[in-house]
Amino acid sequence: MILTVTLNTALDITHTVPALTPHASHRVTDVAERPGGKGLNVARVLAALGHETVVTGFAGGPTGEVLRSLLAPLPVRDALVPTTGTTRRTLAVVDTATGDTTQFNEPGPVVTPTEWAALLTTYQELLAGARAVALCGSLPPGIHVGAYADLVRRARAAGVPVLLDTSGEPLRRGIAARPDVVKPNADELAALTGSREPLRATRDARRRGAHAVVASLGPDGLLAVTPDGSWRAVPPARVKGNPTGAGDSAVAGLLSALVEGAPWPERLGRAAALATATVLAPAAGEFDPERYGELLERVTVTEQAAAA
Amino acid sequence: MILTVTLNTALDITHTVPALTPHASHRVTDVAERPGGKGLNVARVLAALGHETVVTGFAGGPTGEVLRSLLAPLPVRDALVPTTGTTRRTLAVVDTATGDTTQFNEPGPVVTPTEWAALLTTYQELLAGARAVALCGSLPPGIHVGAYADLVRRARAAGVPVLLDTSGEPLRRGIAARPDVVKPNADELAALTGSREPLRATRDARRRGAHAVVASLGPDGLLAVTPDGSWRAVPPARVKGNPTGAGDSAVAGLLSALVEGAPWPERLGRAAALATATVLAPAAGEFDPERYGELLERVTVTEQAAAA
Repeated sequence: MILTVTLNTALDITHTVPALTPHASHRVTDVAERPGGKGLNVARVLAALGHETVVTGFAGGPTGEVLRSLLAPLPVRDALVPTTGTTRRTLAVVDTATGDTTQFNEPGPVVTPTEWAALLTTYQELLAGARAVALCGSLPPGIHVGAYADLVRRARAAGVPVLLDTSGEPLRRGIAARPDVVKPNADELAALTGSREPLRATRDARRRGAHAVVASLGPDGLLAVTPDGSWRAVPPARVKGNPTGAGDSAVAGLLSALVEGAPWPERLGRAAALATATVLAPAAGEFDPERYGELLERVTVTEQAAAA
Repeated sequence: MILTVTLNTALDITHTVPALTPHASHRVTDVAERPGGKGLNVARVLAALGHETVVTGFAGGPTGEVLRSLLAPLPVRDALVPTTGTTRRTLAVVDTATGDTTQFNEPGPVVTPTEWAALLTTYQELLAGARAVALCGSLPPGIHVGAYADLVRRARAAGVPVLLDTSGEPLRRGIAARPDVVKPNADELAALTGSREPLRATRDARRRGAHAVVASLGPDGLLAVTPDGSWRAVPPARVKGNPTGAGDSAVAGLLSALVEGAPWPERLGRAAALATATVLAPAAGEFDPERYGELLERVTVTEQAAAA
C-alpha cells in the first residue's frame, strides 16, 4: 500500500457564480464539496491507478466530519487522526464568464501536542505496511516547523521511500533530513534556492539533501535531477485548462511508478502525462483516464547533460 | 413572546482577507461564523432588547447542526424544524484594505412537502403563545411562492400581528394576504410598485393589501404609511459603517414597540435608532446599546401630509 500524509486537510468548496464582481453580492448557482488537501488528492489519483492507498493526517469538527463522509465512498482507506480543532475550508469561486478561479484558504486548526503524538503513533504503524509514503502540503498551526523532517527520518528508518511535497521553511528543514524525492514547483524552488534558472535551482535543491529533486514547471513539464541522471519530461503540446491538482497528480505518477519498480524516465513520463491529463479534465483535480493513456504515449523524456 | 420565521436560514461565514484580488489565491486571516437569515438576526436584536423570542424555520445537515450549536448559547428559543437537505452557507469576504464586503450566497436546500407540513404544525402551535410574528427573508427551493401568504393568513386568523419582510413574488403574494406590516427596502419597493418615488411607492404598496408599509430607505431613514397616519423617521446625521442587518434591526424595533403598545411615531423612532446603531457597530448585524440609547433621543419623526 501507498501512504499519503496530509497534516492540513481541508474541505474544498467550489462556488460557481455567473461573474465575480468585487464588493457585490452574488447568488451561487452551484455548490460542490470534496475532501481536500494535497495528500488526499494524491491518494485519489493513486486509487484511480489501481493502488491500495491509505491516508493519514488530521480531521476534526463539523467540517472534518463532512470531509470524512465524502472520503468514505472513495477507494482510499481513512486513517485520519481526530482533532478537537475544526478542519479548515478552502473556497474556490469559479467565474463562469471568464473560467477564472478566486481562492480563499482558511488557516488550519491548532494541533495539540497530544494530537501530534497520536499522529506519530498512527504513522509509525502504517509505515510497517507501506511501500512508499508521500508527505504533502502545509503545516497547520501548532505543529513545529521540523515536523516533516521528523516524518522523513522515520520513513527512512523504516526503509520506506519517502516523497516530500511542501514549501517554505518546512521544505527547507525536510530536505535536510534526506527524503528520497522532493517535488517543488517553480515558485517553491525559487524560494528555496534563490534561483529561477530551473536546472541550476534543481541541482542546488538536491545538494541540500534530497536524493532526487523533481521540479514541476507547469506547462514546461518536469525536470528531475536524480542519482541515476537528469531528465526533462515535456507534454506533447501546451494545454489550456485548470492546473489545480496537477502537481498532486504528478506526485501520484511518481510514487505509483516507483513502487512498480519503473526506472526514472518511466516515472517522469507517467507523472507528466497525469499532470497534463489533470489540467485537461473539466473538474479541478480529476483526470481523464483516456487522455492520460494517449498522453503517456506522447510525453517526451530527454536526458539532460551531467552537471558542470 | 415574539416569534420570528426564517424559512431559508443560513450559516453566515465571514472571511477577512488583507485585500481582495479577483482570480488570485488568498490566505484568510480571520474566520467568523454565526447563525444567519433575517429572522434569526431580528430575534437576536429582540432578545438584546429584553423580549422573549422564539425562532422557527428550517435547519438541516452539517451546516444546520453548526447553526443550531451557535444558536444554543443565545437567549433565543430554537424551534427550528429539521430538514434532510443541508442548510445553506453565506460567505462574506471582508477586504481590510477598503473595508468593503463581497458576498456569496448559496441556494437553500429543497424543502419537502412533509417538512413544510411539519413547519405549519410548529408555526400554528407557536402562534398560540405569540404576541407578534415576523416572517423574514427568501424562500428556499421547494416551497410554493404563496407560502408567506399562507403564514400571514394563519397569523391573522390567530389574532397575532404579523410583519412580512421579503421580496419579489413572495412579497407580492404575501401583501395580498393583508399582513399588519410590510417592511420593504427601496429596491424591493421599486420592484413591487415600479416607482422609485418613496412616498408614492409606499402608498401604492399599502393599496396592495398591507395595513401598514414601513419602507427602509437606508441613510434616509424610514417612511411609514399606516392606518393612523404617515411619518418619516430620520437619523440625526448620515453615518458610515456596515449596513448589513440594519433592516433586520429596524424590524426588531418595530415589533418590540408594537408589543409594548407604543404608537407609530415611537415604533418608527426605535426602528430608525436601532438600524443606525447597527450600521455603526463594528460587527455586521450587531448594535451598540449605548449608541442606540443616544440615537433614540436624536431621531426625528415627522408626520407627512395625507395622501393626495
